Amino acid sequence: MRSAALIAVDWGTTHARAYRLDDAGSVLGVRAEPLGIRQLGDLAYPDALARLLGDWIDESVPRIACGMVGSRQGWREAPYVDCPASLAALSRGLVETGPGGIAIVPGLATRDAAGVPDVMRGEETQILGAVPADSPRTLVVLPGTHSKWASVERGVVRDFTTCMTGELHEALVRHTILGRLADGPSGAGGDGAFDRGVERGLGAGGFMHDVFGARTLALAGDLAPGDVTEWLSGLLVGREIRDTRRWAEQAGDDATRVLVVASDVLAARYLRAFERAGIEAVKGPADAAATGLFRIACAAGLVAVETA
Amino acid sequence: MRSAALIAVDWGTTHARAYRLDDAGSVLGVRAEPLGIRQLGDLAYPDALARLLGDWIDESVPRIACGMVGSRQGWREAPYVDCPASLAALSRGLVETGPGGIAIVPGLATRDAAGVPDVMRGEETQILGAVPADSPRTLVVLPGTHSKWASVERGVVRDFTTCMTGELHEALVRHTILGRLADGPSGAGGDGAFDRGVERGLGAGGFMHDVFGARTLALAGDLAPGDVTEWLSGLLVGREIRDTRRWAEQAGDDATRVLVVASDVLAARYLRAFERAGIEAVKGPADAAATGLFRIACAAGLVAVETA
Repeated sequence: MRSAALIAVDWGTTHARAYRLDDAGSVLGVRAEPLGIRQLGDLAYPDALARLLGDWIDESVPRIACGMVGSRQGWREAPYVDCPASLAALSRGLVETGPGGIAIVPGLATRDAAGVPDVMRGEETQILGAVPADSPRTLVVLPGTHSKWASVERGVVRDFTTCMTGELHEALVRHTILGRLADGPSGAGGDGAFDRGVERGLGAGGFMHDVFGARTLALAGDLAPGDVTEWLSGLLVGREIRDTRRWAEQAGDDATRVLVVASDVLAARYLRAFERAGIEAVKGPADAAATGLFRIACAAGLVAVETA
Repeated sequence: MRSAALIAVDWGTTHARAYRLDDAGSVLGVRAEPLGIRQLGDLAYPDALARLLGDWIDESVPRIACGMVGSRQGWREAPYVDCPASLAALSRGLVETGPGGIAIVPGLATRDAAGVPDVMRGEETQILGAVPADSPRTLVVLPGTHSKWASVERGVVRDFTTCMTGELHEALVRHTILGRLADGPSGAGGDGAFDRGVERGLGAGGFMHDVFGARTLALAGDLAPGDVTEWLSGLLVGREIRDTRRWAEQAGDDATRVLVVASDVLAARYLRAFERAGIEAVKGPADAAATGLFRIACAAGLVAVETA
C-alpha cells in the first residue's frame, strides 16, 4: 500500500464510508459498511471504527470524520458552528473522541428569515469539498431526503437552507391517495411526466393545491396512473428550485453558478429541472466528502501539506 | 310523524346521512349509518338505502342524494357540471337511479390557472346550502382532508379550488421524521403552538423548507416535542389561507366575506387562523348539506314550494 496521509470517514445514520488519502488528497482506497450510527446495536464506536478500517489502522495516520457520528446520538457531540463558517472555523470546531479515536467535524447552524433555526451535519463537508477553496460565489445543491442548498464563496459557507423534498415525496407516494393512484400502467414515458411536474412546480400555485393535481389529472385521464410518481417528483424538484431561487435572490445569489452534488441519476434529474427553469447548473465532483474532510484536516494542521 | 316533503341523503365514502325535511326545508329527523359507498360489501344500493331510511320509506316522498354515491364507483355516475354552476344547472344535472331509487346531484368541475382540472362531489351541495340564494359574493371554506374553497354569488358557484391540507398533515405527522419527534411531552399549550405554526404558514417561505422547521425548532428546544403536531396543523392552515387568499385575489374575491363550514372544533381552528391573517370570517350554518339538497330539489321541481 502507498503511504496514507489521512483516514477520512463519512459516517452517517445508516452507513459509514472510509477513504484512505495521500498527502495531496487523492483517494487511495474506499471502504463502506452498513455501520451507521443507528445500525450499531451493541457495537461500541471504537470497535465499529476498527471493523470499518480493517488493516488500514495505523496509529501514526490521523483520522477525521463528518456526519451524524458527531450528533448528540453519535460517538461524541461536535456542537454546531454558526454561518458564515470558513474552513478554519470548522477546523477549530473539531472534537476529538480520545486516544485511538477520530476527530469529528462539527455541523453548521443558521437561522432563516423568520428566525427559525436550520442545521446540517455532514453536508457542510461535502459542500466545502465540492467547491475549490478559491472559487467565486457558488450555490451548491445537495438533493435528497432533506435537500441542502448552500451559498459558498472562497471556502466559506455563507448561508444555507433545507427543503424536505425527498422525504415529502416518499410520504406523498406511499401514504396519501395520490400514491394509491400510482399502481396503474405508465403512459408515454417517465421523462415527460417528470417534465410536466417540473413545469407545475415552477409555476405560481400553492403547494397543497398543486400536489392535488396528481389526482385530478389522473381522474381526468390526462396523466397515466403509472406516471403519478414521476410527475410528483418533478413537481417537488421544480418547487424546490422555485422557492430556493427566491431564497437565493434575497441573499443576492441569483446570478451565481449552481453545482449539483449527487449521484449521476439524481444529479441528472436536477440538471433537467434546472434547465427547464432557465438556470445554468453543472454536476459537482464525486467524492466531495473525502475532499472536504481533507481540506478541513489541512486547515486543522492534521495533515502536513507541502507549500510551494 | 309530521308529513315529509323530501328525503335528502348526504352519501359519502364512509358514511350515509339521511334527513327528513318538511316543505319549508326544516329538518324533521336525521339518520346516519356507516353505509358509505366503500363500506357496502355485497349490499346492493337499493338495500342500503332501505336500511338507512327504515320506516321513513314512502314512495310518495321524493328523494335526493349528493356525494360519492354519484361517482363512477357509486350507485350511478352523475357527470360533473362545469363552473360557474347555478342551482338550476345542478338541478338539470340530476341523475335518477330508477324506480324506488333516488335522484343524484352531480359534482362540479373547474380548471385552475394552469389548466389543471379540479373537482368536488358533495361539497357543492353543502356550499349552496350554506349561503342564502340571494347573498352577495362569499368565499365558502370547507376544511378537511381535501379542503375546498368556493366563490359563491346569488346561488352560483363561480369557481373553487382544492387544498390537500388534512391529508398532508396526517402524512407528515404519521409518516415523516417530523411526526417521530412528536411523542414527547407538550409545552405551554397547544393553542400557542398552533398560533406559532399559523404565523409561519402565513409567512413568505417555501412549503418544503417551512415544514422542516418543526424538526429544527424541536432540536433547538424552541418547540416541545408534544406540540409538533399542533404547530404543523397551524402551519398548514396558515399556508392554506395564504395561498388561497392569493387565488381569491386573482378572482377579484379578496374583499368578500368568508364562511367556514365545518364542525365546531375545526371551524374554531380556522376562525382563529383567519383572525391572525386579518381576515374576517364566520362559521357557517349546521346541516348545510340538508339545506343544499332541499334547494336543489326545489330548483328541480321535486318539491312543491308555495310562493307568496
